Amino acid sequence: MPRSPGRVEAFSDGVLAIVITLLVLELKVPVLQDALSRGEAVDALRLLSPKFGSFLLSFAYVAVFWVNHHHFFDLVVEVSPGLLWLNNLLLLFLCVIPFPTAFIGDYPANPVALVCFAAVLMSAGLVFTLMWAYAHRRNLLDASVRAEAARDAVRRGLLGPPLYAVAGAAAFVAPWVAWVVFVAVPAFFFVHSMKRPWSD
Amino acid sequence: MPRSPGRVEAFSDGVLAIVITLLVLELKVPVLQDALSRGEAVDALRLLSPKFGSFLLSFAYVAVFWVNHHHFFDLVVEVSPGLLWLNNLLLLFLCVIPFPTAFIGDYPANPVALVCFAAVLMSAGLVFTLMWAYAHRRNLLDASVRAEAARDAVRRGLLGPPLYAVAGAAAFVAPWVAWVVFVAVPAFFFVHSMKRPWSD
Amino acid sequence: MPRSPGRVEAFSDGVLAIVITLLVLELKVPVLQDALSRGEAVDALRLLSPKFGSFLLSFAYVAVFWVNHHHFFDLVVEVSPGLLWLNNLLLLFLCVIPFPTAFIGDYPANPVALVCFAAVLMSAGLVFTLMWAYAHRRNLLDASVRAEAARDAVRRGLLGPPLYAVAGAAAFVAPWVAWVVFVAVPAFFFVHSMKRPWSD
Amino acid sequence: MPRSPGRVEAFSDGVLAIVITLLVLELKVPVLQDALSRGEAVDALRLLSPKFGSFLLSFAYVAVFWVNHHHFFDLVVEVSPGLLWLNNLLLLFLCVIPFPTAFIGDYPANPVALVCFAAVLMSAGLVFTLMWAYAHRRNLLDASVRAEAARDAVRRGLLGPPLYAVAGAAAFVAPWVAWVVFVAVPAFFFVHSMKRPWSD
Repeated sequence: MPRSPGRVEAFSDGVLAIVITLLVLELKVPVLQDALSRGEAVDALRLLSPKFGSFLLSFAYVAVFWVNHHHFFDLVVEVSPGLLWLNNLLLLFLCVIPFPTAFIGDYPANPVALVCFAAVLMSAGLVFTLMWAYAHRRNLLDASVRAEAARDAVRRGLLGPPLYAVAGAAAFVAPWVAWVVFVAVPAFFFVHSMKRPWSD
Repeated sequence: MPRSPGRVEAFSDGVLAIVITLLVLELKVPVLQDALSRGEAVDALRLLSPKFGSFLLSFAYVAVFWVNHHHFFDLVVEVSPGLLWLNNLLLLFLCVIPFPTAFIGDYPANPVALVCFAAVLMSAGLVFTLMWAYAHRRNLLDASVRAEAARDAVRRGLLGPPLYAVAGAAAFVAPWVAWVVFVAVPAFFFVHSMKRPWSD
Repeated sequence: MPRSPGRVEAFSDGVLAIVITLLVLELKVPVLQDALSRGEAVDALRLLSPKFGSFLLSFAYVAVFWVNHHHFFDLVVEVSPGLLWLNNLLLLFLCVIPFPTAFIGDYPANPVALVCFAAVLMSAGLVFTLMWAYAHRRNLLDASVRAEAARDAVRRGLLGPPLYAVAGAAAFVAPWVAWVVFVAVPAFFFVHSMKRPWSD
Repeated sequence: MPRSPGRVEAFSDGVLAIVITLLVLELKVPVLQDALSRGEAVDALRLLSPKFGSFLLSFAYVAVFWVNHHHFFDLVVEVSPGLLWLNNLLLLFLCVIPFPTAFIGDYPANPVALVCFAAVLMSAGLVFTLMWAYAHRRNLLDASVRAEAARDAVRRGLLGPPLYAVAGAAAFVAPWVAWVVFVAVPAFFFVHSMKRPWSD
């Protein structure tokens, strides 16, 4: 049983690096009737814009997860079997991301596709929050982490799920609201990670 | 010749991280006639359910192999050429997993597909058990590992193959029995890895 | 927050290794009418030559980025959140590379495709140069790095963008000029990395 | 410039792990008219046998390269820019392997496909041999490596190219001879790596 976080992190890093890189495989080169036509090429790229949008979105999510995942494991001193399997569950949802990414890229206004995307990110967020709560309660975190900091992390982690629920509900009325939420959540975590004191 | 397990583990980790992430490439976005239709999207997802099922199954298998593989190499003090090549053989079967996963995802009730899946997992399980037996006999394990623990691992590893054989045989009569076995085996190893004492 | 460069490098290495390897997926085996025909196979390979060309080009770019990225992080003593996110932005552009690579491989004389390729590489180059400037100004570099060396790196990094702009403009008049520039830039950095004193 | 081999090895390991795992993507699930037909499934698998064959072959080649690459870098004490770029050239040929693998898998008796496969492996083998010769001449190897051992490695490395040339020539007369050579070369290196003294 790997007890030190080193290996769990290395494996998670590998998975995240692969997920973030596989996303590009969804950006397929358009077929042009006239190989030299500029107008046709520009039009084709314009048609691909939802694919680029969902690619950028998922890239941002995975990048945020990577940063937060590292922040978390930097504070973990011991990995219990329970934490190991919670992490595997998190990796499951992160590995799935390319599917809903492609789905909303192909059907950017279909509520079912948007709900899929929201559901996967909500699940990943919930599992990650659970990891914080679990590690805190089982005393797997470094002694220097004050209870307050762990509770803050859990509280922050609970911000996402209601927002994803709003996005999922809004998708049935106004798909663009879902997209706005999808952009807002990683933007919030990005800003937060920039403000995080280095001494964390 | 790499003699310390560090590099063999790093390479194996890389391969396992890639295999577990490549599985998602089999989840292809369905083609919808009406880009906005909810009903069509839900139906398409329902049709994909065997693909999701086989994805989850293989994810669980690779995760269990990763956990057990680490447990094993934590106890290995020296990697002989023979152990190195047994490990390469194990990686071969693990690398192949996406193929039978896709096969049973496309044809969940075809006995030949189910036999393929059972055969690959049985082979991987047998090679891994062989690695335990080989490392034990060649004294490549840490001195703190009692002979009993190694024998336990081998005995536990020999539980899977007969079950896979049952799954393969059942596939010709009642495919769902094969699926039940495919779920039961990683569930057993998951429960076992949760109970494993940390001091292992 | 990961402050030591170790993990940022490991993650970046993973992403670069995957990007450089995924490029080959664009080299699709041609379909031959006569499975044994040599002439048909040779013709099919000849038709693939722009794909091979763009593959080699992007391989060279990613290899050069890897070498320079390492050189840079060897000199970084502390990773601030800002540097971490600049690196994530760099990884975004490097992850995208397979798309314009495939685009110019399919349409080697289409100016829009060539502009896409130039734009992605220019963006990656600019972000990397920004990383040098940022790390230098924020004192994140090793004390042994003289201000002059950092300024040299920034100056060298600013060579690429105007060249890419020339390539993009030339693409509308004479596509082959764009290709010549695309070959010349990594060749320049390759020669430079060969001349770099080992004591760097 | 990375001078210690650690990072070059980590990057190379990543690339090799990805190449060896991507090979499976060529094993595409056959399309069955009758989803439950056993006979059709067996026939489809039989038709896939050249694909399985080329998969196994390339897996073996990459595994052998991984083992020998590690053996080599275990003995390297310093990485010069020249050695770094020779290694990048080696990675280029190893990254390309999935293409000729798929080619001979689709057209197992087409001499042009077989020549492609032979050419890529010959190139990789030659570059690797060049790395041994270069590292030996430039005194980049550990002092404990006797000149004789380095010369042995070079001599052994020069065994492959003529054999690949024979395979390529034979492909035009009797394709099966090429396949026999393709099996024999990694088998030879496998046997050799098993016999290599651990103290190497």
